[in-house]
Amino acid sequence: MNEKDLTKKTAENGGTPTQKRKYTRKKPETATPVATVAPAEETEETAKSARGRKPKDGRKTPVRIIPLGGLNEIGKNMTVFECSNDMFILDCGLAFPDQDMPGVDIVIPDFTYVERNANKIRGIVITHGHEDHIGGLAYLLKKINAPVYATRLTIGLIEGKLKEQGLFGKVKLNIVEPKKTVKMGCMAVEFIKVNHSIPDSVGMAIHTPAGVIVHTGDFKVDYSPIDGKIIDLARFGELGNKGVLALMSDSTNAERAGYTHSERTVGESFDRLFQKAEGKRIIIATFSSNIHRVQQIINSASRYKRKVAIFGRSMVNVMNTAIELGYLEVPPNTIIDIEMMGNYRNDQIVLITTGSQGEPMSALTRMAMNDHRSVVITPQDFIIISATPIPGNEKYVTRVVNELMKSGAEVVYEAMYEVHVSGHACQEELKLMLALTKPKFFIPVHGEYKHLKKHASLAMQMGIPEKNIIVAEIGNVIESDGVSMKVTSQVPAGRILVDGLGVGDVGSIVLRDRKHLAQDGLIIVVIGIERSTNEIVAGPDIISRGFVYVRESESLIIHARRVVQYTLSSCSPAELREWNTLKNKMRDALSDYIYQKTKRSPMILPIIMET
Amino acid sequence: MNEKDLTKKTAENGGTPTQKRKYTRKKPETATPVATVAPAEETEETAKSARGRKPKDGRKTPVRIIPLGGLNEIGKNMTVFECSNDMFILDCGLAFPDQDMPGVDIVIPDFTYVERNANKIRGIVITHGHEDHIGGLAYLLKKINAPVYATRLTIGLIEGKLKEQGLFGKVKLNIVEPKKTVKMGCMAVEFIKVNHSIPDSVGMAIHTPAGVIVHTGDFKVDYSPIDGKIIDLARFGELGNKGVLALMSDSTNAERAGYTHSERTVGESFDRLFQKAEGKRIIIATFSSNIHRVQQIINSASRYKRKVAIFGRSMVNVMNTAIELGYLEVPPNTIIDIEMMGNYRNDQIVLITTGSQGEPMSALTRMAMNDHRSVVITPQDFIIISATPIPGNEKYVTRVVNELMKSGAEVVYEAMYEVHVSGHACQEELKLMLALTKPKFFIPVHGEYKHLKKHASLAMQMGIPEKNIIVAEIGNVIESDGVSMKVTSQVPAGRILVDGLGVGDVGSIVLRDRKHLAQDGLIIVVIGIERSTNEIVAGPDIISRGFVYVRESESLIIHARRVVQYTLSSCSPAELREWNTLKNKMRDALSDYIYQKTKRSPMILPIIMET
Repeated sequence: MNEKDLTKKTAENGGTPTQKRKYTRKKPETATPVATVAPAEETEETAKSARGRKPKDGRKTPVRIIPLGGLNEIGKNMTVFECSNDMFILDCGLAFPDQDMPGVDIVIPDFTYVERNANKIRGIVITHGHEDHIGGLAYLLKKINAPVYATRLTIGLIEGKLKEQGLFGKVKLNIVEPKKTVKMGCMAVEFIKVNHSIPDSVGMAIHTPAGVIVHTGDFKVDYSPIDGKIIDLARFGELGNKGVLALMSDSTNAERAGYTHSERTVGESFDRLFQKAEGKRIIIATFSSNIHRVQQIINSASRYKRKVAIFGRSMVNVMNTAIELGYLEVPPNTIIDIEMMGNYRNDQIVLITTGSQGEPMSALTRMAMNDHRSVVITPQDFIIISATPIPGNEKYVTRVVNELMKSGAEVVYEAMYEVHVSGHACQEELKLMLALTKPKFFIPVHGEYKHLKKHASLAMQMGIPEKNIIVAEIGNVIESDGVSMKVTSQVPAGRILVDGLGVGDVGSIVLRDRKHLAQDGLIIVVIGIERSTNEIVAGPDIISRGFVYVRESESLIIHARRVVQYTLSSCSPAELREWNTLKNKMRDALSDYIYQKTKRSPMILPIIMET
Repeated sequence: MNEKDLTKKTAENGGTPTQKRKYTRKKPETATPVATVAPAEETEETAKSARGRKPKDGRKTPVRIIPLGGLNEIGKNMTVFECSNDMFILDCGLAFPDQDMPGVDIVIPDFTYVERNANKIRGIVITHGHEDHIGGLAYLLKKINAPVYATRLTIGLIEGKLKEQGLFGKVKLNIVEPKKTVKMGCMAVEFIKVNHSIPDSVGMAIHTPAGVIVHTGDFKVDYSPIDGKIIDLARFGELGNKGVLALMSDSTNAERAGYTHSERTVGESFDRLFQKAEGKRIIIATFSSNIHRVQQIINSASRYKRKVAIFGRSMVNVMNTAIELGYLEVPPNTIIDIEMMGNYRNDQIVLITTGSQGEPMSALTRMAMNDHRSVVITPQDFIIISATPIPGNEKYVTRVVNELMKSGAEVVYEAMYEVHVSGHACQEELKLMLALTKPKFFIPVHGEYKHLKKHASLAMQMGIPEKNIIVAEIGNVIESDGVSMKVTSQVPAGRILVDGLGVGDVGSIVLRDRKHLAQDGLIIVVIGIERSTNEIVAGPDIISRGFVYVRESESLIIHARRVVQYTLSSCSPAELREWNTLKNKMRDALSDYIYQKTKRSPMILPIIMET
């Protein structure tokens, strides 16, 4: 059976009980192979069937949990669940590169393990539509084909990604409603509604022969969410009472005491600020995926009789999807084209834009730098940055705020104005989740080591014994037979760097060179050697980039050339034949001279041309 | 009169009334040309004498304030004050490079204006010993020689800097006690005690013919400082009641509501944590210059019967200076050599170390990375990071915390433990300063634009008319005749980058190249051309660095070579003679090919060798 056949088989197996039907979309030309999971039998049924054999010592068919991303890091969340001959994947996200990865666009998990086991993959379940949960999916689906299961909005956002990567129509996308269950071979995955900073987020209860594993996905507890759908605490509790083998829970905010505020508080702040903005044009920057945030801006705009214009590619894309799928309610004649802004007074419009993280190419940054095609910032602007800088972005955001203020605009960005709330659970909510699910074992996920550790200590405070808490690493195989749970082995795991079209062709050597070049630049020394006589017939020529401004350092370069000339003249004919030795001699001589004169260590690149 | 004579003259003039005497130091071999300002006549006298002529319309000899650093930025604070033929400089700091300046070590102000006016400089006054106030001094003193005036500890720290730069003994360093005044030609500078995160900090009252200008330096209000010396609020008030022309005040914390806590609260936290640490070894990282913080660690160590070992070059240096000058009180037998640590149990020692900002080469970072010569982190360590990450350093600090925790250590770093307080005044303290000095004009200083703006709006709330508030830029000449105050002109100002021994030889072109190289690396294409015949006799050869891992991209490089070969073969003999055209053709062809294949834009460097 070839791989294609296998994939097809998997796809058919995976979706049970799935009734394939196309869901209605406004634009028929985008019709797509999306299936909706039909009303399943009561999930309890499915759960029971998944429980499997029970040998006499209480030990059951083991389940293996293999995190491939999202532990000891923020981003690229991905976990493999494995039981007998069945596997499925939960989330497949990307991470953004840090300072140590110059030139890298995004980072994705190492897929080696799932590629090796492609024939066992029954499907991919996705908790929500954020980049750190779906951003690696297109790259994964180029390696293995498997059906994808997610809620409606998440599927809508995934579709957009697949279109960009030319994969649209080639992958089976299945819509699953919360409370519904998807069978994955001998396991079954139940979707459970949670709150987060994007609608339609779910956690998962994974029913396995060894027991139930609850994975919260990213979550918070919002008792007054914008869409009225409160996290399904009752179901988490019910599962807890019936017995949860392990809880895997979001650690992002494990360092923060208390509760995360409701998204609704931000709406109240908007109303206050709209009043304060009076005669001015209002510009609000936020995350494009925070559809409830955008909804609240639209609500405030509507209350204050303002039209809304949308800026930034991702903001436009996400809003289109959200409106199309009914996740955003926009009163008629509220949204206007950018070109129509000129027809309205400042106090009649609100601009919603990307750039809340100060991203250099974003709409808000371009406005701040006076480099935007259609928006010029003036003292008649009232700007709200409805976000908190993600660690590492502080300086970018500050630069944008400074520049906006220099144009005379009023800028609201500080915590005191309550224009942002987190999408993640703080300590009291994390404790609530632990109290509801009462897990035997606990695996903190989604966070750096310090977050995982803090979350682990919360669990210990709540009575979970230390030996039942697993602070894991990516690639760990965490195995449980329902009685014990421990790390039993290791599979390949790591990070793959994506730069332009290249996936994985930038590795540690390339990065090391880039960092070296960035630090001190480069000096090239070229000589030409006549093949037959081993005579130097050209050079040495010295070229530098990123080292010094050459016009002002002519004498340094002239002397450097002399140093090389001297080195060459002291070489024996035998040495002139040994090009590697010759190169090393030139490099060492030049490097010593340059360091002595400048205390810098540029990359030195000797080139010998054979003529 | 040559420059040397002038300098000498200036130095003699400047110190009035200065009685030259060497202050006693423990190690006689470091004796230095330091003079102490002797008890002056009542400062009021000096102030009166500086007030000068008063023409009938109330307009007086104008004073000019020229900020050369510290506005619209954090760091490299420097201001020139100028009146008639006299000038002096207040502070001369450095800034640390941001992401936009790869490879740059430090940034200093552009000294062009003071170099041009070297003969008018009567002296340099320094508010306190932080790098952003003294770090540029050695570079300035290589350009102009002028006497330096500062408090005792500040002079001690400046001495250290000058020694490093080979300037020690060549510059006249004068100790000035708070409440004392130094004459600077027709101006006089009065030192006023303030609180800050380094002892011996002062603000200045600058008595000029046009009126009194108060410069706070960096300050906070601490009613229970460790050295018992509360900021001299009374003198600020007295000046205010007599009439302050302008206030220049620290804006660093202008965004923060309320008051900054007393340094003493940190000591209370240390005591609690020492108790909590019980049987463990304690390691505390903090800023080496925060001598009162170190004092409190030593106090807690003493109370809990622990010995203290010191790590990190700057920590050792500053502590030596502080102990020598009497700013740090260490009970006998408290400090032990690093080598002696083995003689003590974990619960008998405290390590004080640098690295609170996660600096890659610091002692704490090396301990975290398991790369320290004498300290191995274990679960028996209790580590306190007594600092807040400076914006831009968050990721470094987080990495260090994660690594320390992975070694099993307990790490205390969060705000909730109150192990750090700021050294800068928050909004209520800034208002207090405004209320005391009651300035006619207000110039917020020390901060990015957003800080200056926020500070300006505080001043407006307190009744200072908007037209009397000057949010300035570096290089602005702010002029006042005692009646009005405005920006009248501009002098050269900017940033000079220091990289290794090079001061100013890294400019925008070098930085642009470094950033380009860091993003996508470099491709070199070399050909050899025979001079007489214009024939290509060697190459094209292609070499790349920081672009792709060549061994895995051989075919890309082979094809790139073919692209260049094709370009060359289509060149006419005339084109082969026009090397610039030839280079451009090779660059364009290669760049197009590479972008099409990889969506990357490495720097492409065509080299033609003449043989």
